[in-house]
Amino acid sequence: MESKSVAVSSSVLLLLLLLLAPAATSGRPLAAGKPDPDDAAATARWLVAQNSWGVLSTISSDLGGSPFGNVVSFSDGEPGEGCGIPYFYLTTLDPTARDALTDGRSSFTLSEFALGSCGKIDPENPTCAKLTLTGKLKLVDSQSSEAEFARDALFAKHREMKDWPKNHNFQIFKLEIEDIFLIDWFGGPKPLSPAQYLNHGKELSVI
Amino acid sequence: MESKSVAVSSSVLLLLLLLLAPAATSGRPLAAGKPDPDDAAATARWLVAQNSWGVLSTISSDLGGSPFGNVVSFSDGEPGEGCGIPYFYLTTLDPTARDALTDGRSSFTLSEFALGSCGKIDPENPTCAKLTLTGKLKLVDSQSSEAEFARDALFAKHREMKDWPKNHNFQIFKLEIEDIFLIDWFGGPKPLSPAQYLNHGKELSVI
Repeated sequence: MESKSVAVSSSVLLLLLLLLAPAATSGRPLAAGKPDPDDAAATARWLVAQNSWGVLSTISSDLGGSPFGNVVSFSDGEPGEGCGIPYFYLTTLDPTARDALTDGRSSFTLSEFALGSCGKIDPENPTCAKLTLTGKLKLVDSQSSEAEFARDALFAKHREMKDWPKNHNFQIFKLEIEDIFLIDWFGGPKPLSPAQYLNHGKELSVI
Repeated sequence: MESKSVAVSSSVLLLLLLLLAPAATSGRPLAAGKPDPDDAAATARWLVAQNSWGVLSTISSDLGGSPFGNVVSFSDGEPGEGCGIPYFYLTTLDPTARDALTDGRSSFTLSEFALGSCGKIDPENPTCAKLTLTGKLKLVDSQSSEAEFARDALFAKHREMKDWPKNHNFQIFKLEIEDIFLIDWFGGPKPLSPAQYLNHGKELSVI
């Protein structure tokens, strides 16, 4: 219980806590363990940082506009340095990349169940967190610094990718996030804007 | 090595093998272990029988027609008796069921990686099998014998479902499969028709 004689404003207290937190000192602002379900941004960023694969859905050119979900590997950064943006390594030999170049509308879906931390809770139970990021799937200019960041992020998480066949012409794509659907507890999806999601942890990195 | 003096036609040999197979005698025609990647129907049915969850993608009414992938639990039958059709237990409190009632076009995506049998192989590596079933997501008449089969199938695989809140009005949906995308080895998707997929194992059950 806090002593009433110590006059510390909540903002100063927060600053002190941030300075003392191991996360801040180690440069790893994102939680390693599952965050409090009340913290929607932390939970969503944790799901993205911890997972290595998800389902990327596009509008199928081959199937008359049906949605088409494909299992893909991804990364949002090197361990502890995720930026929240999922980057993919795709080839147009696969429908997903072809679809995206025609119509970028996409969604990327992750489950906490894949991490093994839901225990005996059912994958569809709302307390086993699930996340859908919806937006546009865009090709990243291979000569850009963003592509360099994404390659490092992908190859760090997916060691074999750097040796995948050159003649398949794998290219880097990213999801430009426009909407976030997160369920991590009872009571429906948590309100979470792309800005809240992307800015999460930045206040720690700045310190 | 087969003796040349034994004149057994390949069809008779196959019949003998089927009669002798433990799978046939136990009424469990589907493989428990990963099938040969050359057998596309067996591999696809194995992925559906073994997995308990996947990503169901619809055309989002809320998001202007974008694809929307949602993590859902499913079942295609009681253990060893899967029919290949994925059944779901959904509520219109969730966008997926609402989307389906407006536009049934859907896809359902599964990964072998979720089963833990890909070892150190990357989830995007073609030898870690992945399956996308595309078609129409349909509400099943709750009074039908199909609904009874589906409820038994779902509740057997997902024990907690039977206790989910009655006032959420969970209903049974199924995917009517129109197209199958299976990658289980190098060389692109395996040709596999819905009929080949759905009929797989029936020749064993008949014996």
